[in-house]
Amino acid sequence: MKNAFRPDANTWSGIEPRGYRAGQLDQPGQGFRGVTKHVISGDRGEPSSFEVRYFEVAPGGYTRLEKHQHVHSVTIIRGRGYAVVGAELHRLAPFDHIYVGPMTMHQFVNEGNEPFGFICVVDAERDRPQAASDDEYAALVGVSALDGKLRR
Amino acid sequence: MKNAFRPDANTWSGIEPRGYRAGQLDQPGQGFRGVTKHVISGDRGEPSSFEVRYFEVAPGGYTRLEKHQHVHSVTIIRGRGYAVVGAELHRLAPFDHIYVGPMTMHQFVNEGNEPFGFICVVDAERDRPQAASDDEYAALVGVSALDGKLRR
Repeated sequence: MKNAFRPDANTWSGIEPRGYRAGQLDQPGQGFRGVTKHVISGDRGEPSSFEVRYFEVAPGGYTRLEKHQHVHSVTIIRGRGYAVVGAELHRLAPFDHIYVGPMTMHQFVNEGNEPFGFICVVDAERDRPQAASDDEYAALVGVSALDGKLRR
Repeated sequence: MKNAFRPDANTWSGIEPRGYRAGQLDQPGQGFRGVTKHVISGDRGEPSSFEVRYFEVAPGGYTRLEKHQHVHSVTIIRGRGYAVVGAELHRLAPFDHIYVGPMTMHQFVNEGNEPFGFICVVDAERDRPQAASDDEYAALVGVSALDGKLRR
């Protein structure tokens, strides 16, 4: 089965876009802004142990700073931005790959003027993400490489 | 960890490209031509149940016509070509997605003048692919939608 990409609408045939969390693009006080999600594969009964998702972060947007036991394999496909992964900052451009290991705090931020989009593969069976606590946020804010880069 | 994409070399930092099968780009009589493979994630001890691979098919090239129990989630990221999936032909352009179900014969062909590249996600634990038998090949050659499209 083919899901055709529609460049004009920036979506795929047969795949409904969703808000990032609980159907919301952003949610004041919940730590994310301007994020859409497409589940490209894995939630329609496919006999596979993974899900392939596409996340797109609007200009000025960012994903929630969070951690979990399951890992992420993230490949950028459009736009530019950066990822905070643990105490590291990684500038990202198309086709760069980022691996996020278990229980590593991470966040994806769009600094540019066009959408920042990436494919993120996860295990189908996985734990729930945990948002950064105040203490975890404070600890990362103190890392010089991340100065001014965290969003919340 | 970041694997930076190098557009000039068309490869990633920290990831060695491989030939498609047994280290070969192509192998006369084995049914494929001009295919390189990068394992982007999943073969370096990551605690995940999937592998993310990038395949690139050179102009004039094609992957082997084969089937297997495990499924493919394929997202095109560069170039143009087509996929034969069962008795169907799908034209493919960047960001199109193709799902290949269990035991469905499939082949990816580059018809264009630039490299045709796609991300292919699979279960880490999976069965070995089976090349099309002469009978299976003959049956597909007889499908009108695939007239002249199969490679071997």
